[in-house]
Amino acid sequence: MFDWQLHTRIVCGAGALAQLGELAQKRGTRALLVSDPGIVAVGHTARAEAFLREAGIESTLFSDVHENPTTDDVDACWEVAKAFRPDVLIALGGGSAMDTAKGCNFLLTHGGPLSDFWVASPNRRGFSQPLLPSITIPTTAGTGSEVQCHALIADAQTHAKMALGETGAEPTIALLDPELTLTLPRSVTAQTGIDALVHAIETAVTKPRTPHSLLFSHEAFRKISANFSRVLEKPEDIQAREAMLLGSTWAGLAIEYSMLGIAHSLANPLTAHFGVVHGQAVGVMLPHVIHFNAQDPTTRRAYEALGQSPEALAEKVTEWLRFAGLATNLSACGVSEDAIPTLSSEAVRQWTASFNPRSVTTDDLASLYHAALTDKAR
Amino acid sequence: MFDWQLHTRIVCGAGALAQLGELAQKRGTRALLVSDPGIVAVGHTARAEAFLREAGIESTLFSDVHENPTTDDVDACWEVAKAFRPDVLIALGGGSAMDTAKGCNFLLTHGGPLSDFWVASPNRRGFSQPLLPSITIPTTAGTGSEVQCHALIADAQTHAKMALGETGAEPTIALLDPELTLTLPRSVTAQTGIDALVHAIETAVTKPRTPHSLLFSHEAFRKISANFSRVLEKPEDIQAREAMLLGSTWAGLAIEYSMLGIAHSLANPLTAHFGVVHGQAVGVMLPHVIHFNAQDPTTRRAYEALGQSPEALAEKVTEWLRFAGLATNLSACGVSEDAIPTLSSEAVRQWTASFNPRSVTTDDLASLYHAALTDKAR
Repeated sequence: MFDWQLHTRIVCGAGALAQLGELAQKRGTRALLVSDPGIVAVGHTARAEAFLREAGIESTLFSDVHENPTTDDVDACWEVAKAFRPDVLIALGGGSAMDTAKGCNFLLTHGGPLSDFWVASPNRRGFSQPLLPSITIPTTAGTGSEVQCHALIADAQTHAKMALGETGAEPTIALLDPELTLTLPRSVTAQTGIDALVHAIETAVTKPRTPHSLLFSHEAFRKISANFSRVLEKPEDIQAREAMLLGSTWAGLAIEYSMLGIAHSLANPLTAHFGVVHGQAVGVMLPHVIHFNAQDPTTRRAYEALGQSPEALAEKVTEWLRFAGLATNLSACGVSEDAIPTLSSEAVRQWTASFNPRSVTTDDLASLYHAALTDKAR
Repeated sequence: MFDWQLHTRIVCGAGALAQLGELAQKRGTRALLVSDPGIVAVGHTARAEAFLREAGIESTLFSDVHENPTTDDVDACWEVAKAFRPDVLIALGGGSAMDTAKGCNFLLTHGGPLSDFWVASPNRRGFSQPLLPSITIPTTAGTGSEVQCHALIADAQTHAKMALGETGAEPTIALLDPELTLTLPRSVTAQTGIDALVHAIETAVTKPRTPHSLLFSHEAFRKISANFSRVLEKPEDIQAREAMLLGSTWAGLAIEYSMLGIAHSLANPLTAHFGVVHGQAVGVMLPHVIHFNAQDPTTRRAYEALGQSPEALAEKVTEWLRFAGLATNLSACGVSEDAIPTLSSEAVRQWTASFNPRSVTTDDLASLYHAALTDKAR
């Protein structure tokens, strides 16, 4: 049984950024552009601003987005938005820019604090007003945030990563232009590509998966697995870039319904305590998670639907990490064994753990961290 | 480059009809139920009416839907609707019920005549008012109309089949309950299943195909090709029924963007002149169309993306026809050679011909009819 409504219009193609003015025009005359300094430096924001200007839209730029944005970052964006009073929000960047813009939208239309919209809050507030129309323009092929209702924002005090929002809060339009990903540093292509790959694989096996989420998980896996090495070897291949970008968006659509599993539960504490980049963190844990989950026969078949045995799939993920120049064990990420009790007690409380196909205890997760410490551990 | 917006919410699962009251409730208190005598006879409309009643919704039934509905049929439905003044339209049946309800919606909100909304009309009218919310409940796995904006209605005078409507006119909700397909006569399961199969294959190669329409074409082909024989051999297999129903809906979504090809152009005159049932007509022509289209190398690769050579695919379609007890040549459908000039001159003017991957002339289409006359003709 599933109930599927796709709220986001998806516009995709090389050079599609040129449509920004026309798309924004139908939503008003004032646009707040949310981005980060790296995107400004490569000139993407200037091009977006020019397209908006040509369409007669007044825009202002908030370019102070940080990686893994906190509630403080969103508050700063909100201040700019309150002063500018935009009709439409445009996020141009990776997951952090999109998450910041989403959080800003929640605050602008409903007031704060942001933690009120946390899905795990006992006093969670739903949206009583329409949100502002929004356009998401991903510059990495990884997050899938461009089609998702949730913003992932860390609490500035506790550093706990919160999923904020609810169904219906999806961006109005996702504008996918693979040309924007051509200038990515190799390390970012690698880490975000691995993130998208993990999304495709985790969504294919989680408890809430449905025939329609699997449609997107499987297509995402086909596209990403066929093009990941290609974009690393030949970064200027626009067709491979488009396939990666579409694959990450399809995986993002799958997440909306199937959610994610314990590769993500295990990864977040690694990022919080050791600063391990998200794609690296989920990638290094996934092979161990696959071995663990595949002990359940139904989940085993769900992995097999991706076209190979879970064992071969786990090995393939490790090969991709190696090919991308990423670490294949936790020691190489600077994680020490004595941190495992803290990491696993935090991992078990992650939202994503509840959607994993096998139920997990703190001990299970500790075992997975142990297994991941060195390449030979399993 | 593609621009995709999915307007229809899709609710799917065995027994999903029980959600009808709750789904309709959010759209008003008066529902017009559009169906046909066969659906009334098997008790589906009575169950739908009971679910509506339980939800406090007053309903009236228009059950006079005919196969291949004409403008007269839609006018009759409109008369009932004008008197009842519904808040929501519910179509329960095959493509004919859904097309009749869609046409009625156009008339109720914009007035007549219906031909004003024909996509090929030189004075085509767009929709200036919102349409009434609508719920489509397919009882066959074939048409895909449940997620499409167009209504296919024949002109009562000329018998020309008109595609009416425009993007944005898609049904509000498609309610997919495979239990409703359990009571289908074998011949209807066969003909509608072949229709869905032809949709999956034609949409995979047409000129306007995009990465997102192919996603649906390919998944539709996988589901339908894996389950078509199964639903004929074991009609009570609810999982196979669900796979067929989903496959036909996915193919329907593909049609919204990729449109259809000349199997459909060739089929419509066969139905108009010889009363050949639609699924039979598209099925008998498709193998010949595949051979013709596959002479173009790009199109050949598009067929191959379905997992086999075009020649093997064409042979497989013929096998499915045979297995389903359908005719594999035009002579067995009662079509005589001397009708071919008339048929082909009508076929070349069909809307679908313009989307075929290879351009076609009247002579090309005549050759395809000739090839299809007997099993040995090619």
